[in-house]
Order: sequence, then structure tokens, then C-alpha cells
Amino acid sequence: MANHLKGNAVIGQSGGPTSVINQSLVGVVLELQKLGHVGKILGSKHGVRGIINDQYYDLTSAPAALLERVAKTPAAALGSTRDKPDPAYCDKIFANFKANNVRYFFYIGGNDSADTARIVDELAIKEGYELKTYHIPKTIDNDLRVHDHTPGYGSAARYVASAFLGDNFDNASLPGIKIDVVMGRHAGFLTAASALGRKTETDGPHLIYVPEAPVSEDQLLADVDRVYSKLGRCLIACSEGMSTPDGKTWTEGLVTNLERDSHGNIQLAGTGALADGLANLITKKLNNPGTGGGGKKLRVRGDTLGYPQRSFPGYTSEVDATEARLVGKVAAESSKLDGTASTSIAMRRKPGGTYAIETFLTPLSTVARETKHMPPEFIKDGNNVTQAFLDYARPLIGMLPEVGSLSEL
Amino acid sequence: MANHLKGNAVIGQSGGPTSVINQSLVGVVLELQKLGHVGKILGSKHGVRGIINDQYYDLTSAPAALLERVAKTPAAALGSTRDKPDPAYCDKIFANFKANNVRYFFYIGGNDSADTARIVDELAIKEGYELKTYHIPKTIDNDLRVHDHTPGYGSAARYVASAFLGDNFDNASLPGIKIDVVMGRHAGFLTAASALGRKTETDGPHLIYVPEAPVSEDQLLADVDRVYSKLGRCLIACSEGMSTPDGKTWTEGLVTNLERDSHGNIQLAGTGALADGLANLITKKLNNPGTGGGGKKLRVRGDTLGYPQRSFPGYTSEVDATEARLVGKVAAESSKLDGTASTSIAMRRKPGGTYAIETFLTPLSTVARETKHMPPEFIKDGNNVTQAFLDYARPLIGMLPEVGSLSEL
Repeated sequence: MANHLKGNAVIGQSGGPTSVINQSLVGVVLELQKLGHVGKILGSKHGVRGIINDQYYDLTSAPAALLERVAKTPAAALGSTRDKPDPAYCDKIFANFKANNVRYFFYIGGNDSADTARIVDELAIKEGYELKTYHIPKTIDNDLRVHDHTPGYGSAARYVASAFLGDNFDNASLPGIKIDVVMGRHAGFLTAASALGRKTETDGPHLIYVPEAPVSEDQLLADVDRVYSKLGRCLIACSEGMSTPDGKTWTEGLVTNLERDSHGNIQLAGTGALADGLANLITKKLNNPGTGGGGKKLRVRGDTLGYPQRSFPGYTSEVDATEARLVGKVAAESSKLDGTASTSIAMRRKPGGTYAIETFLTPLSTVARETKHMPPEFIKDGNNVTQAFLDYARPLIGMLPEVGSLSEL
Repeated sequence: MANHLKGNAVIGQSGGPTSVINQSLVGVVLELQKLGHVGKILGSKHGVRGIINDQYYDLTSAPAALLERVAKTPAAALGSTRDKPDPAYCDKIFANFKANNVRYFFYIGGNDSADTARIVDELAIKEGYELKTYHIPKTIDNDLRVHDHTPGYGSAARYVASAFLGDNFDNASLPGIKIDVVMGRHAGFLTAASALGRKTETDGPHLIYVPEAPVSEDQLLADVDRVYSKLGRCLIACSEGMSTPDGKTWTEGLVTNLERDSHGNIQLAGTGALADGLANLITKKLNNPGTGGGGKKLRVRGDTLGYPQRSFPGYTSEVDATEARLVGKVAAESSKLDGTASTSIAMRRKPGGTYAIETFLTPLSTVARETKHMPPEFIKDGNNVTQAFLDYARPLIGMLPEVGSLSEL
């Protein structure tokens, strides 16, 4: 493939927003502006949908001052999409690229986006059309294979760790049983981050349930009973995808019940379903638990941390923001070099005690489609995380706020 | 009443936590330590409950370094309580004060706490027992009479404004209808703060429903239809206490339906109920709204912002933190002066264009029991806030994160 093609570049963003996805966008744009080897820099509106509809922002001369503000803004500045292109859709993408003389394609997203990039890339190779394709990682789920971790995870994990840090003090202040549901359908990395704010043995979350460690109703109730009986309170972190030993999600179980009971009149399809269902279950089944309940009505509350996990502004992890910018910049730099195309920009840790990363390029096929899960060595007793997880995740979220307790007196 | 009584002081915290309630606690303690006119400084564990159970932290010599860390920590460091003392309970409080030679009582809380302080204070006056009682304001609801605003509100409002600022970009990135439920059973001040991050006419929240402006189902659906048809998206801020014209709350209506349908099998008593109920309603009734729906399935999501509103750490309003510290300090200073007892420490704005406050003392009875509501001049068209509200609230939350949009290109 010839170097320095004076063709145009397309950049797109896809999937669920993160707090730093625009850092990657701006990393690509500023570096392409600087290197000057591409013609127009086109930002597709709402990912692949903007490509097939020929809707682009022209970012060729976008001013740096605006871009720097955009970089600090959560959610996809170009717009995002949930479209998962089939081969016919990919044909349309490729047709637009040919019509616009697009020779560089940067796609920021998760494993599905990597797969879209891979399919379009293969179409180009098959037709002998010169196209250099780069996947730039983004997902708060942290579930991309090969990648040590993914941009977006650190900021979401920082938010989750902080929310639990605050809720632990809230729960100690007004004791009861509190359930907080965290994003993550298949991977528990974000839920596991709830543990990063703990300082003492009695700090919550006291129980952590991730999709990778199925838990039965009996086990969960026994866990809660034990913690509440000991501490007089219990803070619980649950992945939205937490699962049962028969391979179902807890949400399926709870929502199925509700649909059957409601005779189709009210569907509980909203995001608060799992937290509410768990709160109801615990209230009903544990109303007089162990020694802790003492016959008193339990105070059980459920929160679903919701979209602020992925789009709360002004509270990003600086490490995450820096790395998100870096992978965008590296993608743009790579696009000027031979032998770099058809890859995803990944990070790995440098050897040694201090946290530092280096980037490397990995073929699109190694990242596309299947996702990564929490390894067993990160999960403890089915309801907690290990020191290995804490060591892995702590450098990614930055310093947490300083706090103090009168128990230190 | 004699000045400089060398009796002991009790400080307590009550009700729902805030991010800055410990600033007030530390304001009292540090100032009492400095002034030296009291004997022991006792922090009652879990508010009035600690008093009747004689459970105290001795804060007389608590080190400043620890106190400063505690000040930055969300939720009540002494522990809080939901107990609302009746006269018999107040008798027990007073009995404990006499037994411990307590001559100074500082109670940090909302209108109920002011009332508790008032009742105990009257018992002391009736018996001729020298007791100087001060109520120190705290509530994220901002609903205390006489007070211009209350410590705790600014930080919660900052969180809410920021969550909506982020969610507005999220909603623009993946367009749909999004409902965010905000704390506030009777007062809409916190929900109204959702508007503080808006920059352009098309920024969300596009609709704001507060308890003070009842809205019917037909009106709400028409509002959403209109916004969605115009913008292709709609972000909605709802108070948890949003009401219908017949004087009910929306939650009552939605939860009643659900209970009837579920034959008592599953009770939807959790905090996600309103957001989920609204999302279900809109999905069912507006599936093909105006020109905007175009026959496509609507993307409707509901979040309940939950406890992070009151206990998210590291993101407080500096103004709020400073004022919370100040009212605690002023209470302690006042306790050394004659003619100051039986009061609540309030704030008012100094005249002039620049935001600045001064404190003043107001009798407990003026703050106790009844609460304050959003005045009509803060509410616009039943589904929005006025410039007067924005001008009122903006100085309380500090600067919001800087953001940028590619629509500025």
C-alpha cells in the first residue's frame, strides 16, 4: 500500500458514550492536522449511519481551542449509533468511501466497532482499494481482548469508586441495606471498581456480585444476613448483568415474575428494575435476619447508578483522559506509516513497579466480536474482589478524594 | 442567662446526609475549641438517639488535621437518625442534658431538627435550666423558611446540574427520550437545578417537573411529543414528588397501578419506580409521536439519580462548603454571646450585584415545622424554570465544567 495517500480521512464514534471518547477523537484530529498527509478530515455524524447517509462534519480546519473544549466534554461529540452493520450495510459504507475518496478510516468504539472496521477493511482489500483502517478502543466495560484496559473504563471506574465511597459513609450514617446496581452486562470490571474506595475492613461495599460469579438467591440472602448481623448495615454492589447458577441473569428472573404478575399491563423494562427487585426480595425474605434484624423493619434501598457512570462531566480520571488522547494520536501517526493498517491501537503495561503503559498495534480480528471477562484471579469468594484486581485497577482511576472518619479518634 | 457557662456542649446531626454537613460540624468544634468557653465538646452518635442512649464522641481535643479530613467527607460523621422526637422523647433528651451538665446544644438538620431543638429548648426554659440552643441549617431540599438557601443545597444542585449537563450530551449523542428523577418530595429547588448547565436553546433538560407545578398525564405526554417532534430527542427532569392536578404524587398513581396488578406478589417500593413508570407510560402512549416518532420504536430510558446527589465525594460546591463551615462557626461564636440562644443560624444576600451573604439569627420557631416551596416566579409554563431561578441558584453551585460542541463549528 502506498504511503502518504492524499486521500480523505473519516473518523466515527460508536456505541455507548464515555467521558473521554472525545479525547480520542481530538487526538486523531489534531495529529492529522499537524501531520498533513491526509486531505479532508471528515467526522461522520452518528457513526456508520453518518457514513451511509453522507453526513459529515468537516474537521480539516477545526480550531484547536474548540477541539480542546470538546475533548473535555462527555459523550460522542460526532454523535453515536447502536447500528451493528451487516455485510450489506458495510457495502454501503465502502461505497461512500469510494465516492468521497476516503483512504483513512478511524473508528472509535468497542468490539462491535472493531468488527465493522474489519469487514469494511476486508472489502477494500478484496477490491484492491487503498484504505488504511484503525480501530480506536473505547468502552467503560473494559472488555476488549488483547487490550490491558480500555479508554473510558478508568473514568467510569473513578465515578463508581467515588459513588460507593460516598454511599459507604451515607450507609454508615443512616444504617440499613443498600443495593447499588452498576453498568456491565457481561463483564464485571466496572462493578468491581466499587471496591477501590474502601479503606478499612468494615467499609463497603461489603458484597460485590459480578456476572462472572453466578450467585443463587439462597446464597445472596445468606451473604446479606451474615454482613448485616455483624455490622448492622450492608452495602452491595451488583452488576446489571449479575447471574444465577442456572445461567440466567437476575434481571431476567425478576422481570419475568413481574410481567407475569402484571398481566401485560405494566412492563418493568426501565433501568431501576434490578435494584428494586433486589430490594423487594431482601425486604421480604430477610425482615428478621440473624441477630442484626432484631425484629425491626429493615431499611432497604436500591439505586441504579445509571448514565452518570459514563457521562458525568468534570470528574474524569486524568490517566484515562491522557491515554484516550494518546491512542487517538497514535492512530493518526500510524496512518502515515507503512505496515500499520487494519489494526486496533492497544495498550500494555511496561514492566516494573510503577504504572506506565506503551501502545502497540494488534490486528482488528484479535479485538473484534468476542469480549473479555474478569479473570478468576480477580474474584474472591464469589462476592468480592482480590488484591490482584485492586492493584490492576487502582492506577487507572487517579487519586480519590481524601476522607476521614471519627472512628479514627 | 449567664454568659460563659462552663458547662458541656452537645452537637448532633440529623436527617438525610449532605456533602457538606460535616463542614458545619467541624465549624462548631474548631470554634468551640478555640474560644474555650465550654467544658467538654460531645458529639452525639446518630443525632437525638445518641443523646437518649448517652452515646457520645468526645471531640474536646479532636485534632484539627482529622477534623479537616472529616469536613471534606460526605454524610453525617457523627451518624444521623430519622427519629422525630415526640414530647416524651424530648423529655429524655433534656434528662440526659441535665445528667451531663450540657449547657450548649447545637443541632444540625432541617425543619424537623429545628423543631426538636425548639421543644428541648422550651423544656429548659420552663425548668429554668440554663441551656443555649442553636439550630444549624442543613438540607439538600433547600426548603427552610427565612433562610435564603441552606447548606447542602449548593453541592447537591452542583451534582444535579452536572449530571444533566453530561446527560444532555449523552442524549444528543444517542437520541431518545430520557427521564431523570431528582430528589425532592415537596420542594422542587433541586430538580430546578437541572437547568443550570444549559447553554443553548436546544440543550436539555427540555422539560422540568417540580412538585409545585402539578402536571396531568395528558399534558406531560403532549409536552414530550412536542419536544421530541421538534428536536428528535427529549431530556426530562422530574422531582420524585412531582404531582398531578388532583393533588396526588405521580409515584402514588404509578405504584398503585402496579400493586393492584401484581396481586401483592411483588411490591415496587424501590427508588426506581417513578422513572420506570414514566418510561413505560411514554413508551406505551407515545410510540408514534408527532412527526418525530415516524413509526420507529422510541428509545425511552429512565434513571433515578439516587444517593450520589447527597453524598458524592470530591465534587462539592466550594461556596456551599464555605457557607456550611461558616454557619457552624457562627453558632459556636454566638454561644459565647448573650441574647443569641434559641435561634437558627440563617443566611441572607447582601445588596448589590455580586453574590455575597451575611449570617443572622432567627428564632427557632420561624424555621421549625413547615417548609418552604419554590415561589411561582421561579417556575415557567409549568414545565420549566425562569431566569429569576437561574440567577438565584447559579452563585450557589460554583463553576461547572467547561464543555464544547461541534455545533459551534
